[in-house]
Amino acid sequence: MKVAVLGATGLVGREMLSVLEQRNFPVEELIPLASAKSAGKKLLFKGRECTVREVEKTAFDGVDLALFSAGSAASENWAPVAAEKGTIVVDNSSAWRMAQDVPLIVPEVNGHELSKQKGIIANPNCATIQALVALFPLHREAELESFNAVTFQSVSGTGIRALEELREGALALLSGGSFEPKVYPRPIAFNAIPQIGSFDSEGISQEEWKMVNESRKILGLPDLSVSCTTVRVPVFRGHSEAITAVFRTSLSPERAREILRNAPGVNLVDDAVSGRFPTALEAAGSDAVHVGRIRRDTGSSRGLALWVVADNLRKGAALNAVQIAEALLSSGQLK
Amino acid sequence: MKVAVLGATGLVGREMLSVLEQRNFPVEELIPLASAKSAGKKLLFKGRECTVREVEKTAFDGVDLALFSAGSAASENWAPVAAEKGTIVVDNSSAWRMAQDVPLIVPEVNGHELSKQKGIIANPNCATIQALVALFPLHREAELESFNAVTFQSVSGTGIRALEELREGALALLSGGSFEPKVYPRPIAFNAIPQIGSFDSEGISQEEWKMVNESRKILGLPDLSVSCTTVRVPVFRGHSEAITAVFRTSLSPERAREILRNAPGVNLVDDAVSGRFPTALEAAGSDAVHVGRIRRDTGSSRGLALWVVADNLRKGAALNAVQIAEALLSSGQLK
Repeated sequence: MKVAVLGATGLVGREMLSVLEQRNFPVEELIPLASAKSAGKKLLFKGRECTVREVEKTAFDGVDLALFSAGSAASENWAPVAAEKGTIVVDNSSAWRMAQDVPLIVPEVNGHELSKQKGIIANPNCATIQALVALFPLHREAELESFNAVTFQSVSGTGIRALEELREGALALLSGGSFEPKVYPRPIAFNAIPQIGSFDSEGISQEEWKMVNESRKILGLPDLSVSCTTVRVPVFRGHSEAITAVFRTSLSPERAREILRNAPGVNLVDDAVSGRFPTALEAAGSDAVHVGRIRRDTGSSRGLALWVVADNLRKGAALNAVQIAEALLSSGQLK
Repeated sequence: MKVAVLGATGLVGREMLSVLEQRNFPVEELIPLASAKSAGKKLLFKGRECTVREVEKTAFDGVDLALFSAGSAASENWAPVAAEKGTIVVDNSSAWRMAQDVPLIVPEVNGHELSKQKGIIANPNCATIQALVALFPLHREAELESFNAVTFQSVSGTGIRALEELREGALALLSGGSFEPKVYPRPIAFNAIPQIGSFDSEGISQEEWKMVNESRKILGLPDLSVSCTTVRVPVFRGHSEAITAVFRTSLSPERAREILRNAPGVNLVDDAVSGRFPTALEAAGSDAVHVGRIRRDTGSSRGLALWVVADNLRKGAALNAVQIAEALLSSGQLK
């Protein structure tokens, strides 16, 4: 199979290469693509060096599968071009997620909707994916009425320059110096910034709208009540989320643990009294969505609170995209 | 006036000295007290050196006001001793907060309840104080039905050793080394730890119960619905909180801003579209509760979301305690 990765030099793109390799995805030829700026760079795939090519129309000739992670503008431009040539595109940007004809897929939740794909499939936002992998099994049992998610999102979601900014900012502040941020609107080291993406006229951020709208689409619950505050924290890798969910029928913490212990993609790390709960530092590099601190919600009789942690570059991006490709393979839509 | 500070060498104790000095509280004699371990240490107050004395029964002789911040065990022991000698104790620990005879005071919210004091007055938990300074003016207008608070709490709430642990842990990780935490159950640098205090058998933390129970007591709303997740983040000073509040009558973000612009103790920093919102790094060292990101709650028709930031050592602890003492002065209960 001929597989292209657009945005191959970015944090998510590199992770896509490594996930394809680790999971033995049947890649016969790998075509790393990027903007003109990155063309010519060398990347390793399965121990062989590949040269990054500039994305252009002919780059998709004969390509079976393309994983995109080069930002919304590139996806808007190139996904239709690739799809028209018969390439199946799994797009990690937000460009196509809310388009009616584009399935928005978390394999553990709505993998069956892949049958509706017409060439472009959208990979949801990182923060949304991990919330739904944890909430969906509970929803199937007790029907979700509403949820409130507050996120603690790592800087790797922003890209390579953000990793450097956190590192440099931390060193500057620790040595008593000052620091002028370039990537974020405020210094991120030793701080918490309640802005991810731009704000609409009501002051709601793009990332907050993604949680609201993508959750509704993926769960097929257009009227689901979703409250959300998305916050960037000085963590390199791994997003954490404090979620409170209210269900139509009551669901005990014990029963929720039982369900999540056997839920696909979930790693239950939940024995708070013995000090067992997940954190971002431990979850970084892993594939699972780690769930802990499951407890009754002190604020509602049919509510549960949980703490959900995942590697945003893996399950939040590259891994979910490759899992979508694997599902296409096993259903015969990709061969 | 003879003023004692118990726990004078701790982070909050030192801040108490500095707040007393900055606000020109009428201190004629300052008596810094601590455990035997810290006795003999020297502290500066109004440019003069004072020697820390070990706390003992006679230390409260003739003392008009004692500010306590030496932990719950010390408060349990010494507050009744001091009160019996006629000293008014303002206690920053959690020891007396829920005691029926002890007023739990945020001056901007329930200062009038100081008239009921019988010698011991409790200073609420840091995270609770800042939430209520922001919510109370809105509650007076539209009647609070429930709120959900997720906290981003700085390490200074834990004490001096936690500041060192964050600093050392950050340097270790940045230089590629590993780090064995002593103060926290996990490394705090570049992480987020969903544990503050110990967990009860249901897996709810002490800090979460403080938000629930103290809010109900201070607002005089014993049935208020409160959901809470409290999280430690790698910030040196200043707590941030993502709050969603539901009111009985609907309250627009515009009206909420109008109310909070003139509310006591509040600094409105709210123009998200222009990049104006508060963060911990900016709030550190300031007296106000900074409120921003006021917006409609996407999850409920009568809800508002807000982002609330304050210096946990000042308004969250030392400043609130001194403001209580000032209120006692102006009402003639302390002279």
